[in-house]
Amino acid sequence: MNSKEKFLRRFEEGYHICVGLDTDISKVPKYLLALENPILEFNKRIIDAFKKDTAAFKINLAFYEVHGHKGLETLKKTVELVPDNIPVIGDAKRGDIGNTAKMYAESLFDFYKFDAVTLHPYMGFDSVQPFLEYSDKISFILGLTSNQSSKDFEKLKISGNRFLFQEVIEKTNEWNVNENCGIVFGATNPKELKENMDRLRDLIVLLPGVGAQGGTLEEVTPVFKEVNHNNYLINISRSLIYADSSEKFAEVAYTKLLEYNNVVRII
Amino acid sequence: MNSKEKFLRRFEEGYHICVGLDTDISKVPKYLLALENPILEFNKRIIDAFKKDTAAFKINLAFYEVHGHKGLETLKKTVELVPDNIPVIGDAKRGDIGNTAKMYAESLFDFYKFDAVTLHPYMGFDSVQPFLEYSDKISFILGLTSNQSSKDFEKLKISGNRFLFQEVIEKTNEWNVNENCGIVFGATNPKELKENMDRLRDLIVLLPGVGAQGGTLEEVTPVFKEVNHNNYLINISRSLIYADSSEKFAEVAYTKLLEYNNVVRII
Repeated sequence: MNSKEKFLRRFEEGYHICVGLDTDISKVPKYLLALENPILEFNKRIIDAFKKDTAAFKINLAFYEVHGHKGLETLKKTVELVPDNIPVIGDAKRGDIGNTAKMYAESLFDFYKFDAVTLHPYMGFDSVQPFLEYSDKISFILGLTSNQSSKDFEKLKISGNRFLFQEVIEKTNEWNVNENCGIVFGATNPKELKENMDRLRDLIVLLPGVGAQGGTLEEVTPVFKEVNHNNYLINISRSLIYADSSEKFAEVAYTKLLEYNNVVRII
Repeated sequence: MNSKEKFLRRFEEGYHICVGLDTDISKVPKYLLALENPILEFNKRIIDAFKKDTAAFKINLAFYEVHGHKGLETLKKTVELVPDNIPVIGDAKRGDIGNTAKMYAESLFDFYKFDAVTLHPYMGFDSVQPFLEYSDKISFILGLTSNQSSKDFEKLKISGNRFLFQEVIEKTNEWNVNENCGIVFGATNPKELKENMDRLRDLIVLLPGVGAQGGTLEEVTPVFKEVNHNNYLINISRSLIYADSSEKFAEVAYTKLLEYNNVVRII
C-alpha cells in the first residue's frame, strides 16, 4: 500500500482526525522526564494508544530540530513507531529552488520515510516540483493558514479580484496531474472554508486551527459532508495530546480522540 | 561583537562575496571520499582557505538534512569551524505559526549558533516575529527569488499595481524596527534590481543567482555602488566551491574568490 492509498483507505473507513505530534519537552507528563528519551517515550505511548483510530499523524519538525541532531534521531525513531497502514505527515513547510528542493524531498521522503509533507508555495512551481515527482506521496501546499497574520500576504487581493491564497489553490489544482497534491486550509473560520469549497476540488485538505487555535469540529465537519468531499484531515495537536498529565495521559487522550471521531461520524 | 556587527564590519572592510557551502557528496573531490566525513573535510578546507576574504558563509540546510541526523551533526561542526568574526547564514527558508517559529528560531540561533537565517514571508508577520525578537541576529526575508517560477506568485500584481514581492519588501521595511531585517533579492536581472533599489532602503540585501544561475558580478555590483548602498551580499555557491576537483581545490577556489573580490572592489 503506497502513501496515497494509505490516506484514501483511512478516509473511506471514516477517519478524519489527524493527530499532531508537536511534542514539547516542557509539556510532557513530568514522570517521563526520568526516562532517557522523554519525547520518544511520550510519542510511543500516544502512537500505541491512538494507532487504530487516527486518520494520520502529523509531525511538526520544529519540535525536533530544536534539539539538534539528537532531536532528528528521535524524529526518525518516531516515524518508525507508526504502523505501516497509518500515514505520517512531515510538517516541514519547506520551499527552495529546484536543486535544493530535491534534497529536501530526499530527506523527507527517502530518509525519514514520511508519507506526505507540507510546502511553502511562495517560490512557485519549480520549488515544489521535486516533491510532486514522488507520485505516490502527498504534498500539501500551504493555501490559507490558521494564524492571524495570514492577512498580511495570503489575503491580499490580486488581479481578477481574488485573494493570493485562492490563486495558490488554483495553481495547486493545476499541479495535481499525478493526483498527489493536498492543500492546507486553516479551519478557524467555517464561513470562509464554505466559500472556498468549490476551489478545493480533488485536493486532500489538511485543516489546522481546530482546538487550541479556536476552530471547532462541529463547524468544520458539516462543510465537507454537505458537498461529499471525503478527503480531509482535521489536525488536532496540543488540545489532544496534552489533555492529561498523569501516568494515564495516553489513555485519557485516547478517550478524547474517540469523542472527536464520534463527533465527525454523527454530525 | 554581535552578529549584526559582524556583517556591518565586513561590509565596511569592502567584503561582499558570500560563499555558499552547498556541499554535495557527489561533487566534492574524489580523494576526500576516503576520509571519515568528506563533507566536513571539504568544508574545513574551504573555510580555512577563505576565512580572511569572504564577507560571510551561507549554509544551505537541505544539503545536510539529506543525510539525516548525521548530516545535522556535520552542519553543527561546520558552523563551529568558522572564525568568530565571519558571519554565518543558515539558509533554512523556514516559516510557521508563532509557537512553531519560536522553536525554529531556537534551533537556528541558539543551537546551531547561526548569525542569520532566511525566512519565507507567506504566512506573514507572526511567522517571522520570533526570529525578529533576536535583535542582534539578521533575518533575511525572501523577497524576489532567483528561480524561474518566481513569476508564479512573487510577480503577481496586487492592488496598488505593484508586485507581491514588492509588498513583501515594503512589509519587511516596516518590520525592521530593530534594524535586523535583511531581504533576499535574486540577482539574475540587474534591470529589475535597479528598479527596486529605492524600496530596499536600510535592509541588508542577500543576492542569490550570480554564477551557476546566470547573474554576473559586473552587472550587480554597480547597482549598489551607484546609490551608496553598502550593505549587500552576493552569494556564490557551486561555481566557486567546485571550481577545481584536485587536491588543491581549496587553493584554486580561493584564487577565484580573490578575483571576485577584486571585481567588486574595482568596478
